[in-house]
Amino acid sequence: MKLEQKPRILIVGLGLIGGSYAKALIKKGYSVSAIDSRQEAIDYAIKEHIIDKGAAFPDPALISEAQLIVFALYPKVFIDWIREYQQHFSPGTVLTDVTGVKGSVVYTVQEMLRPDVEFIPAHPMAGREVYGVENSDERIFREANYIVTPTERNTEEAILLCEELGRELGFARVSRLSPEKHDDMIGFLSQLTHCIAVTLMNCNDSPQLQDYTGDSFRDLTRIARINDKMWSELFMMNREALLKHMNAFSESFNDLRQMLENNDVDTMREAMRNATARRALFDKKVNE
Amino acid sequence: MKLEQKPRILIVGLGLIGGSYAKALIKKGYSVSAIDSRQEAIDYAIKEHIIDKGAAFPDPALISEAQLIVFALYPKVFIDWIREYQQHFSPGTVLTDVTGVKGSVVYTVQEMLRPDVEFIPAHPMAGREVYGVENSDERIFREANYIVTPTERNTEEAILLCEELGRELGFARVSRLSPEKHDDMIGFLSQLTHCIAVTLMNCNDSPQLQDYTGDSFRDLTRIARINDKMWSELFMMNREALLKHMNAFSESFNDLRQMLENNDVDTMREAMRNATARRALFDKKVNE
Repeated sequence: MKLEQKPRILIVGLGLIGGSYAKALIKKGYSVSAIDSRQEAIDYAIKEHIIDKGAAFPDPALISEAQLIVFALYPKVFIDWIREYQQHFSPGTVLTDVTGVKGSVVYTVQEMLRPDVEFIPAHPMAGREVYGVENSDERIFREANYIVTPTERNTEEAILLCEELGRELGFARVSRLSPEKHDDMIGFLSQLTHCIAVTLMNCNDSPQLQDYTGDSFRDLTRIARINDKMWSELFMMNREALLKHMNAFSESFNDLRQMLENNDVDTMREAMRNATARRALFDKKVNE
Repeated sequence: MKLEQKPRILIVGLGLIGGSYAKALIKKGYSVSAIDSRQEAIDYAIKEHIIDKGAAFPDPALISEAQLIVFALYPKVFIDWIREYQQHFSPGTVLTDVTGVKGSVVYTVQEMLRPDVEFIPAHPMAGREVYGVENSDERIFREANYIVTPTERNTEEAILLCEELGRELGFARVSRLSPEKHDDMIGFLSQLTHCIAVTLMNCNDSPQLQDYTGDSFRDLTRIARINDKMWSELFMMNREALLKHMNAFSESFNDLRQMLENNDVDTMREAMRNATARRALFDKKVNE
C-alpha cells in the first residue's frame, strides 16, 4: 500500500488528536471516516466536513472498508478494541496508533493481532491542554515530532508508509526509534516534567501565591492541568522508565540542595553554568 | 517628595532592568541620569536618548544632584556601594532598589544608612534571559508585579512614592509585602523553579534528547539559562526559605514516586486532579 494511492482511512477515537488527523488528511484529499463513542463528535465532524462519514459504534461496514486505520484511543481501550473487533478488519489492512507509551502497548497488540493485518506503531508528539474534536487543529503538528516505533514484526513497507503518513500530516520531523528507546525518552521529556508540574502545584498551598506569580512559575506548571485518567494510565504503563528518571532527578536535586546547605557556592555556580550550556543545545532546534 | 514634581532620577547599574527603568521614566518626562562601570553602557544610553547624562564611575556631582536614586545592582555590590559612596547623597534623597531578595539586603542597608536619607526597597518581578542595557525594554513591566517591601524604618510618604513609581513604570500590579513574606514567596515561585530547571538540565545527559524535545520540556527549562553569579548570590541570600521550599518539594515529589511504585492509581489520580484544580487559580490573573 502507498499513500499516493489514497487509501481509505478510518480514525477510531475522534478526540483532539484523532480530529486533527482527520482535518489534515481530508484536506489532502483522502476519504476519511471515523468511529467514536460520542455521537455528537461524529455529528460535529460530518457537519464541519472533517470526515466523510462515521458511526458512534464499531460499525463492521466502516471497519472492513478501511485500508488504513488510525487508533487515537487511551492505551487500555485501544488494546480491548483490537481484541474485540479485529475480526472485522479486511486482510491487508494497515493499523497505526497515536499512543504516548509504546513498550507495554505495541507488543501486546502485535501478539494478539491477526497475521493478515499489520500494526505499525507511531507517536505524534503534539497536544494541547484542551480536549475533543471541537478543539482539533492540524496546525499543532507543524513544529512537532512524529516518531515511528517499529518492532521486528514490522515490514519495511509499513514503516515507510507510516513515516510518509507523518509527513503528510505536516509534522516538522519524522523519525524512527525502538519502543524501548521511545519510552525512555518520553519518560524523561514528557512524563517526568508532568510529575514536576503536578508536584509544584501540590507542595505549597499558600493562598497568596497566585497574586505574585510570574512567567517562570506559569511556564513550569502549565502542564499541571492534566487529564488524570489518561496520564495515570501512561505513567503506569511506563512505570520502570519513569521511576528511573524520577530517581535521577531526585538525586541531582538533592545534590543542589546540599550545595546550598553547605554554602558551596563554587560547585553551585558550576552546576548553573553546566545547565546553561546544556540548555543552549535545546534551543537550537527552534531556530532551525 | 512627590513624583508629580518630577524629581531628578539617578539609576545606578544600567543593565537590563536599570535600562528598562530609564526608558520608561525618560518617556514620562523625567530627567534621568545613570552610573555604570561599563563606559559603553553609558555611551549607548546617551546615544539612544535613554538617559540625559551619565558616568562610568560614582561621580559625586551626579549622586548629589539626584533626588531619587534607583539601585539596579547585584545584592553584594549594592551593599558595598552604599557603604562607600553614601557620603555623596544630598539630605532628603530617596533610595530604592530592584534586588530580588529582601531580608538579607534591606536591613543591612537601612542599618548602615545616613539618617537624613531613606531607603525604600522594592522588587520589580520582571526579567528576560538576556542582559545589558542594549536589551532593555520597558514593556517587560506591563504584565508584571511590582512589590514594595517596607520595614518599620520607612515613612508612609516614601512607601507611597515607591508604589507610585511602580505604577509610573507601567507595572500591572503594585503591592506591599514584608521583606520576610516577600522572600518566602520568591523562594517558592522563582528560586525553587530555577533549581528545578537547573536540575532537569543536569540529571540526564543523553545526547539524543534535544532531537525529541517538545514544548513542555522547553517551557520547564527555559529558565535553566541562568546567570550563575547573580543567582548563586540570590540563593545564598535566601538560603533558609529556599531550603524549606526545596524540602517540601522533595517530599511531595517523593510521595508521587511512591504512588507509582505502589501502583496506587487512585491516590495518583487524586493528586493530579488536585494539581489541575489548583493550577486553574494561577490562570485567572492572565485573563483578568
